[in-house]
Amino acid sequence: MISVVIVGTGNVAKHLFDAFIQSEKVLVNQVIGRNKSQLKYFEKNTKTSSNFEKAYPSDILILAVSDDVIGELSEYFRKSNALVVHTSGSALKETLSSQRKGVFYPLQTFTEGQKIDFETIPICIEAEDNSDLELLEELASSISGQVFKISSEQRKSLHIAAVYVNNFTNYMYQIGKEICEENNVPFEILMPLIRETSNKIERISPKEAQTGPARRNDRKTLHAQLSLLKKNEHREIYKIMTNTIKAAYGKEL
Amino acid sequence: MISVVIVGTGNVAKHLFDAFIQSEKVLVNQVIGRNKSQLKYFEKNTKTSSNFEKAYPSDILILAVSDDVIGELSEYFRKSNALVVHTSGSALKETLSSQRKGVFYPLQTFTEGQKIDFETIPICIEAEDNSDLELLEELASSISGQVFKISSEQRKSLHIAAVYVNNFTNYMYQIGKEICEENNVPFEILMPLIRETSNKIERISPKEAQTGPARRNDRKTLHAQLSLLKKNEHREIYKIMTNTIKAAYGKEL
Repeated sequence: MISVVIVGTGNVAKHLFDAFIQSEKVLVNQVIGRNKSQLKYFEKNTKTSSNFEKAYPSDILILAVSDDVIGELSEYFRKSNALVVHTSGSALKETLSSQRKGVFYPLQTFTEGQKIDFETIPICIEAEDNSDLELLEELASSISGQVFKISSEQRKSLHIAAVYVNNFTNYMYQIGKEICEENNVPFEILMPLIRETSNKIERISPKEAQTGPARRNDRKTLHAQLSLLKKNEHREIYKIMTNTIKAAYGKEL
Repeated sequence: MISVVIVGTGNVAKHLFDAFIQSEKVLVNQVIGRNKSQLKYFEKNTKTSSNFEKAYPSDILILAVSDDVIGELSEYFRKSNALVVHTSGSALKETLSSQRKGVFYPLQTFTEGQKIDFETIPICIEAEDNSDLELLEELASSISGQVFKISSEQRKSLHIAAVYVNNFTNYMYQIGKEICEENNVPFEILMPLIRETSNKIERISPKEAQTGPARRNDRKTLHAQLSLLKKNEHREIYKIMTNTIKAAYGKEL
């Protein structure tokens, strides 16, 4: 049994907590957070506190907090015997002031109130020595079938790649929705296309999967579409994406 | 039974053909195309020809060809009694020179050799009078459960929105893959995130689903990520997407 204390009460803290309490291999001793109303979420299933100086002893202490307070909060656990880890995609392990340092980064997008199946979520782990890495692997494996030991450099790259495939992609959906709304077409008509776009790259590479007027360098359609776009930001994104795709495929013609 | 002649031998022609021959309500009389080697794909299940002047009689003639030859090829069918339709997202119905004109636009991304389940593909139809529209509706319903009667204006908007949610999104996957490869991280680690990004908007709107450093206006992470990007095109896209997301959410803070 691995004992855990979670510091933080946001989305990542909640989703991790929900996964850990389902596992027979993990015991969440305590959740600590400043926001007392957010602590209510955890009260039924563990002890809670808003006093960072009174953390219960545990094998692992997880700082599930935003990047800019990792360093500051880890000061409270400077003398802790626990392995202290953060859950950030971009912060260095060295941001932590604790004796034993590590990273426990679940590569997924967490939204308030949206349940998620942790079993398929990749968890990227990092520690300073093998025994701590094994401990983190045991914790990660208790909730996920996909555990990866990766370096800080690799984690940073993954986080940047995630910004493109998740944050920027989601904004493409948002623009698609705005264009539909401007023209009284239900956005739902696009859902099968959105599903197939993400499914397709499980079978073939994005490079092979690329289609559309930019890839074909179909100037007539590109020009006509650009002239129909009403919002300046839509036009700017259309231009840069089109030029980039044209350049990427043009070289190959 | 609706009889159909397909003109064209590309991806859309092949995928439509494969769907029609599964349906008991449709008979494909003939496939016509310039490219004799491409015609082989259809030979086992219908008559084929490379002579546009000798189309078999049919209820509907489908021009599944690229936008820039729709007008030219439709000249061959100027006197045809058939309802002549094209499959384009952006071409006007009036591009056709035939007596009876229509549009039969399947809103999906078709890739050579990739099987697709037509049942869930939205088909957007348009015609000049009700009886032709009903005929197209019957044809579309024979292969898909999602048939939409939409105007040329709406179809054009859908096609533009599709460019964002499909073509541009796929290129975001491509960039994600390039960043992974540059840093020796397997792109597959990102697949669950990619799946969840597209699944999430079936439950909540893209606006609510937006997460990430740009939405939070997390300047430290944005700056750090930008400085790690090696390719100029990656940086340019990062900047414009980040600024657009910041502006969209900044207004609301």
